[in-house]
Amino acid sequence: MAYRETVELEADDILEAALTGNVAFLVVGDPLSATTHTDLIVRAREFKSKDATEATPVPVRIIHNASITTALGSSGLAGYNFGQTVSIPFWTDGWRPDSWLGRIGDNLALGLHTLCLSDIKVREQSAEDMSRGILRYQPPRYMLIPQLISQLIAAAKDHKVDYLDPDRTLAIALCRMGAEDSATRRGEKVVAGTLAELLACTTPDAAQQAADQAEEDKYEEENPLASENDMEKLREERSVRRAIEFWGEPLHSLVIVGSRLHPIEVTYGKALALPGSRWEEVARDVYGCTA
Amino acid sequence: MAYRETVELEADDILEAALTGNVAFLVVGDPLSATTHTDLIVRAREFKSKDATEATPVPVRIIHNASITTALGSSGLAGYNFGQTVSIPFWTDGWRPDSWLGRIGDNLALGLHTLCLSDIKVREQSAEDMSRGILRYQPPRYMLIPQLISQLIAAAKDHKVDYLDPDRTLAIALCRMGAEDSATRRGEKVVAGTLAELLACTTPDAAQQAADQAEEDKYEEENPLASENDMEKLREERSVRRAIEFWGEPLHSLVIVGSRLHPIEVTYGKALALPGSRWEEVARDVYGCTA
Repeated sequence: MAYRETVELEADDILEAALTGNVAFLVVGDPLSATTHTDLIVRAREFKSKDATEATPVPVRIIHNASITTALGSSGLAGYNFGQTVSIPFWTDGWRPDSWLGRIGDNLALGLHTLCLSDIKVREQSAEDMSRGILRYQPPRYMLIPQLISQLIAAAKDHKVDYLDPDRTLAIALCRMGAEDSATRRGEKVVAGTLAELLACTTPDAAQQAADQAEEDKYEEENPLASENDMEKLREERSVRRAIEFWGEPLHSLVIVGSRLHPIEVTYGKALALPGSRWEEVARDVYGCTA
Repeated sequence: MAYRETVELEADDILEAALTGNVAFLVVGDPLSATTHTDLIVRAREFKSKDATEATPVPVRIIHNASITTALGSSGLAGYNFGQTVSIPFWTDGWRPDSWLGRIGDNLALGLHTLCLSDIKVREQSAEDMSRGILRYQPPRYMLIPQLISQLIAAAKDHKVDYLDPDRTLAIALCRMGAEDSATRRGEKVVAGTLAELLACTTPDAAQQAADQAEEDKYEEENPLASENDMEKLREERSVRRAIEFWGEPLHSLVIVGSRLHPIEVTYGKALALPGSRWEEVARDVYGCTA
């Protein structure tokens, strides 16, 4: 398994092996679509073997593949009308990067759809471990639809922008694109609705909230030394569990629908919409497009 | 072979067969990326068999694939920084559609790259045959890099826009993406340069122009009844031949580079650039990015 460090720090070993044999660098999706590996290709072109006096370029052949940038077609929206893609990073208490908000706004101003890719944290170290010099990785974290939409709405509110109104913005969730149904894993899940509707799928109702509170009370009773941090962890684990219950395993992506809609796209999305969704109504009243 | 007419007029036959058997609808590239087949999917969902009283939805499974929208990664440019994709249709004497120009401008204003897809005319009838009711198809035509760039420059001139200056705009030609080298067919060809440089690859020099003129004179001598139309055809065939000599067989696409450039992308493009290209100079002076 070639981890990030392998690629960043041991690229020369990969290239050295490729001088005398066939080396395949395997990636999920397309090799140049999201995380780009152009750096490795540039190094291959300029490669100088350890004992060599001159550069010996390593030939590279790129094998294109399906990726979320083609699989987004399952939203039913024409690929031509997508603007720039954005990546939504996990927010922390102290760090809430939101430069992606303006990019979504630029797309929407032109009537274009936006593919939002959600953050992935794999083999990340905690700040605490890093400062202590302990090499230990945190469990992998994947941003799921509810958190992604929550951050979208929060950033729009922070900046008081006039777009991403939860009740007037259509979106399509794309989960596990390319995955097949199996005994252990659900296949693709593609769901359309307003941002508010998609978020509400995992919002606990009054009964659930009461049960959550009871769970927390019990935990505190059983763990009298539990810190606010521990409680936060409990709550986060619960919301992840709840998100996966509805949306299924990661990876999750989201398309924010722009105003360049075609009636056939509204019809297509209707079949993907949540039961009771205002999909068609918002398409007609806000987007000006009738199926 | 399912031609456009098969899909548009005989979709019900496809769906009827899919009710009782497995039917695969095979496409070049990804089924939903460029030409979208959402219409066929919507029909499948609402399908009502000939003799049936109720609708019997036909289950559809989409198999994602590589497409030009992932293969454009071979330009070395990050997929995140692409704006909306445009299609450049063949111009005729009477019809010069150029709504794509404004879209390129919108992308460039945001610093974004533009993927330009070139027109394909397959199984098209001539206006003359159509008016006479003769069902006969014209030979297939594919827009090639020189014509694509010529139309870009002409439209920019027509509308007096301040972008697409041939000497100050970087572009990357993407030819036959996904094709493998074979005895009869060259593989992928990816070439970077300014629009002017890419166009100049097939511009005849003085000696060629003289030879072209001689060829035309000879043709007219041998065919004293040759019309201006015949001469036009001769010239077009020559320019197609010349384009294929340099760029190879279709399909050809072109990426117009926006200002969101990273130094590693400039380095990557340098290896793709034409001999003597001003790639790095323009990246530095116009785009403000140094490798």
